[in-house]
Amino acid sequence: MLQSPLIESLIEAFRVLPGVGPKSAQRMAYHLLQRNKSGGAKLASVLSDAIEKIGHCSLCRTLTEEPTCHICASERRAIGELCIVESPSDVQVIEQSGIFAGQYFVLMGHLSPIDGIGPQQIGLDLLELRLQQGDIKELIVAMNASVESEATAHYIQQLAAQNSVVVSRLAQGIPMGGELEYLDSGTLSQAFLARKQLID
Amino acid sequence: MLQSPLIESLIEAFRVLPGVGPKSAQRMAYHLLQRNKSGGAKLASVLSDAIEKIGHCSLCRTLTEEPTCHICASERRAIGELCIVESPSDVQVIEQSGIFAGQYFVLMGHLSPIDGIGPQQIGLDLLELRLQQGDIKELIVAMNASVESEATAHYIQQLAAQNSVVVSRLAQGIPMGGELEYLDSGTLSQAFLARKQLID
Ligand SMILES: [Zn+2]
Ligand SMILES: [Zn+2]
Repeated sequence: MLQSPLIESLIEAFRVLPGVGPKSAQRMAYHLLQRNKSGGAKLASVLSDAIEKIGHCSLCRTLTEEPTCHICASERRAIGELCIVESPSDVQVIEQSGIFAGQYFVLMGHLSPIDGIGPQQIGLDLLELRLQQGDIKELIVAMNASVESEATAHYIQQLAAQNSVVVSRLAQGIPMGGELEYLDSGTLSQAFLARKQLID
Repeated sequence: MLQSPLIESLIEAFRVLPGVGPKSAQRMAYHLLQRNKSGGAKLASVLSDAIEKIGHCSLCRTLTEEPTCHICASERRAIGELCIVESPSDVQVIEQSGIFAGQYFVLMGHLSPIDGIGPQQIGLDLLELRLQQGDIKELIVAMNASVESEATAHYIQQLAAQNSVVVSRLAQGIPMGGELEYLDSGTLSQAFLARKQLID
């Protein structure tokens, strides 16, 4: 044992954070203990509070301390458009863009049979019930560009078809300000395949 | 407001950690809430405990939950050699090398008049008392290679001279601008073995 058991436990506890190895965990522990005890106390108390109180929105599944999140609870959102995303951070980034005024459905992951994550684990039974209610006119699938996300999108597309709901996917292609020479070939191929004819 | 106030507070609270910007803070919050609530609860509880209980060793000033740290309390350490370091992580890395069997004195910083950090703020009054007791035969100054650390080392050297205590500095192996806690054990051992006595 090289140092106090409590400091060792604290360093170990910081390892639960994503991307935090032994060295950064140690730096975090020492930093709070040496330089910012009040910040550390605040973090401990807010974290404990959040772990206890934050659960899932009963309508869209996103993280919230209320029974229903503020987007689902808002009367100003269009109820005919439902945007399907994988995580609460995706909701954040779409809200920041201001481009979408409908509601969301947050999968909190994607299908991954190898990890035991089937349709129910990502709330697709809940989504199906919602489609059956008939309010949704268009499902906008805004998933990441991975193989698992693709499979999940395909599953959702079938679900929508069974309930006669229109499905769209976000357009794929060259990002704003993107330079051709730095694009990966996958993106470039997509951009070619989805090219649009110009009309003068 | 884009999301729940409690999640916003949690993201904000993670910003106290060194090197954690808004994006990583958000990733940390979501990760614990979505995937590791028990790890998050553990972190909150250990952190709260550590902030409350960990203070400074009454002899060497390092961080510990005991009145005296386990190195100062050990009867197996040579009491004639005192190694001066800037932080508890420096103690860790020297202990890992196994090259030193004496005791430590941890400044918890270095002189920085511009930040109001004078000799008392880094415990040099305590160090002087200890030198006056006459048990210390050699002071090994193991500071980082920065201008402030250099000035601090110089100050300590004078303190030792006034009390007729031999001072050495770690000599070989510390690269310019290098920080002790990132050195490997071999380099550090070299630096200990090749330490040089300072002559005024
Ligand atoms: Zn919701
Ligand atoms: Zn001690």
